[in-house]
Amino acid sequence: MSHPLDLPIAHEIIAADAVLLGGEAVSINEALKRVAKSFLSAKVPQPGYDQSGRDGYAIAADGDAVETGRRFQVIGEEAPAGSIKKIILSEGTACRIMTGGMVPQGGVRVVPQEDCMVEGGKVTVPAHALQRKNTFIQKKGEQIAEGDLLAEAGTVLQPEHLALLAATGHTKIEVYRKPRVGFFCSGSELVGSPEQLVPGLKISTNRYLLGGLIPQFLAEGEDLGIVSDTSEKLGLMFDQLKSASFDVVISTGGMGPGKYDLLEEAFYLAGGKVLFRSLNMRPGRSALFGRLGDTLVFGLPGPPGAVRTLMNEMVGPALLRLQGMKNCGPVAMQARLEQRVDMKNNDVLHLKAGILSFAGGFACVRLAGRLEIATCFILFPPGRSVYQPSSEVEVHLAYSPFASA
Amino acid sequence: MSHPLDLPIAHEIIAADAVLLGGEAVSINEALKRVAKSFLSAKVPQPGYDQSGRDGYAIAADGDAVETGRRFQVIGEEAPAGSIKKIILSEGTACRIMTGGMVPQGGVRVVPQEDCMVEGGKVTVPAHALQRKNTFIQKKGEQIAEGDLLAEAGTVLQPEHLALLAATGHTKIEVYRKPRVGFFCSGSELVGSPEQLVPGLKISTNRYLLGGLIPQFLAEGEDLGIVSDTSEKLGLMFDQLKSASFDVVISTGGMGPGKYDLLEEAFYLAGGKVLFRSLNMRPGRSALFGRLGDTLVFGLPGPPGAVRTLMNEMVGPALLRLQGMKNCGPVAMQARLEQRVDMKNNDVLHLKAGILSFAGGFACVRLAGRLEIATCFILFPPGRSVYQPSSEVEVHLAYSPFASA
Repeated sequence: MSHPLDLPIAHEIIAADAVLLGGEAVSINEALKRVAKSFLSAKVPQPGYDQSGRDGYAIAADGDAVETGRRFQVIGEEAPAGSIKKIILSEGTACRIMTGGMVPQGGVRVVPQEDCMVEGGKVTVPAHALQRKNTFIQKKGEQIAEGDLLAEAGTVLQPEHLALLAATGHTKIEVYRKPRVGFFCSGSELVGSPEQLVPGLKISTNRYLLGGLIPQFLAEGEDLGIVSDTSEKLGLMFDQLKSASFDVVISTGGMGPGKYDLLEEAFYLAGGKVLFRSLNMRPGRSALFGRLGDTLVFGLPGPPGAVRTLMNEMVGPALLRLQGMKNCGPVAMQARLEQRVDMKNNDVLHLKAGILSFAGGFACVRLAGRLEIATCFILFPPGRSVYQPSSEVEVHLAYSPFASA
Repeated sequence: MSHPLDLPIAHEIIAADAVLLGGEAVSINEALKRVAKSFLSAKVPQPGYDQSGRDGYAIAADGDAVETGRRFQVIGEEAPAGSIKKIILSEGTACRIMTGGMVPQGGVRVVPQEDCMVEGGKVTVPAHALQRKNTFIQKKGEQIAEGDLLAEAGTVLQPEHLALLAATGHTKIEVYRKPRVGFFCSGSELVGSPEQLVPGLKISTNRYLLGGLIPQFLAEGEDLGIVSDTSEKLGLMFDQLKSASFDVVISTGGMGPGKYDLLEEAFYLAGGKVLFRSLNMRPGRSALFGRLGDTLVFGLPGPPGAVRTLMNEMVGPALLRLQGMKNCGPVAMQARLEQRVDMKNNDVLHLKAGILSFAGGFACVRLAGRLEIATCFILFPPGRSVYQPSSEVEVHLAYSPFASA
């Protein structure tokens, strides 16, 4: 299929071939930034018992009327939170209780200690404290009832989820397996280190870009190295990949129309099935997607800017999709351009690296400078050649925790 | 110092004691999400030589005039990118060149192949192609000149930085050491697993919360376990910490005014120096900061919501500050409230968990539901009791790559 595809169609084609990965049960600690495979709900309620909301005295019903309120006989030892000695409060009695402590059977109210007057084994509680609406007792399940939803399937689990899951009786969590991603950079001009540099050769930079980006999409990357632009070397790589166990392979380079851009041919000759090889956008005119056995293969062009953009728009979402993440595409929002932009080539959708900022609650965006790290990508749809300052544009966030820092 | 402090003052006190950690040189791959210790600039230019921007022919000056343009004698073998064979183009000659290939000495222009007519070892170039402003030669250093700034000291290095650093001749990067953070949860009611649960006891959830949050602030956490609310056990923990090598220790619980809230006393008796123990905000009324030898100690209250908020507002920024990160506080922005909020207690600044969204370029925020994961914290300054829908409020982003997903 060599006709350029619109990105949404490309996503559909990828989705049709992206079989959900299997699951595995991991401990709560290991579940951080993993995607939940099933609906997760509370196994036990929180709190697990009626608990005190204050340090003070738990009191039973009634008590002796005295001038300043009501007086209760204090029973039991002072018990810190965590003491699980059983006390039963019968009428007219009270016991000391701490925040988070279990309210004994028979307790109807906790009176904060600042309201209590204690003398000779008795506690006197003023009338106003007895009439208060708040009993300072948190009922069992008041925070989380048994069965309450904690996370839908497809949720990326955050630290707060782990705390909720632990609190409600979970020990092992069923999550999707992480995609195993092999990547290589093709180009006879590429070398691995500055020592090998002579004029005409370049350091392979995409391996660092991919090595850093793949974990952002919660996958495990393996650098397969640099491959020369020859049919033999590329063919050998694809042959080796057939017996490897990668869920996804990403390549960069070798995708142009040039005589030495041999990637597609080598992929095809190795038994790969090309599902598309061109997107209706820039960058992306040269971007291959196919299958090699059960492995999904993305052939990206060589320029790092194109690799970065296509990772955000196409490959990254596919990696998240394999793990069952809902809404796996980049986060989209509207923003106002801070500058004029002229699009000389407005034949297809263009994505340009942008810097997003928020002033007074408005999203504003400008083109990223030459050496600035994009915090978003700005969409310039086909057919429009001039964007005045303050034009409204759509942006896609770059996946990065420090994007807006 | 028991007088409650405003958060900015607390930050100043922390900053005065937060001695920058030392540095270490790491490989480019290991530098991901580390903080640069020095100004990083390009050691070699990019491209490192004059390179072709197209597949086509590099031509020397002049050439034989023919009816359809000018004709050049093709010399040299076809050379893929990466071929470093030396060719010199003398007047009237041309050679084949690929995108990214080095323009030979004497080359004045690259003519894209679609403009070239090749016949019998000669290439004919039409006049219009010779008059084009764009020579399709990218000059050495055109993308990145030697000495160009790639990252200021204090920058968190992203995948794009790694690619730029690799491209410009770096192999080892000087970064700040990661803070080593020990954390423990205090509470006699806490147990480690659901099997140990009986009424009156609770699973320790803060250990999961802290274990998940600490890496978000680029630090290494070590779970030191659960400590009972007794002077002996807390004292023993602090004594052990004196000879441990943690940069930071975080505790939760034991910070209330209750009889069994013994953390501050135990810290003091172990030789700890309390620098403050109360913030002028909720949560944060009970929040201790001090030093134990060279270790910074944060004593947080027990409720997980308070732990989450104070990690975002106080402890996390301190962890980033130790690593030399500039602007280490949470990202602040204005947003519009989507609901009415009544503040019954408006005596101090309140921070409440919020959910941020963007509609039509506006930041909107609502209070997070009971079991929702906050994507931000909403600031409600003291003295105001009613916030109508659409009120403008300040929010602090929660550090999370998926915050707005």
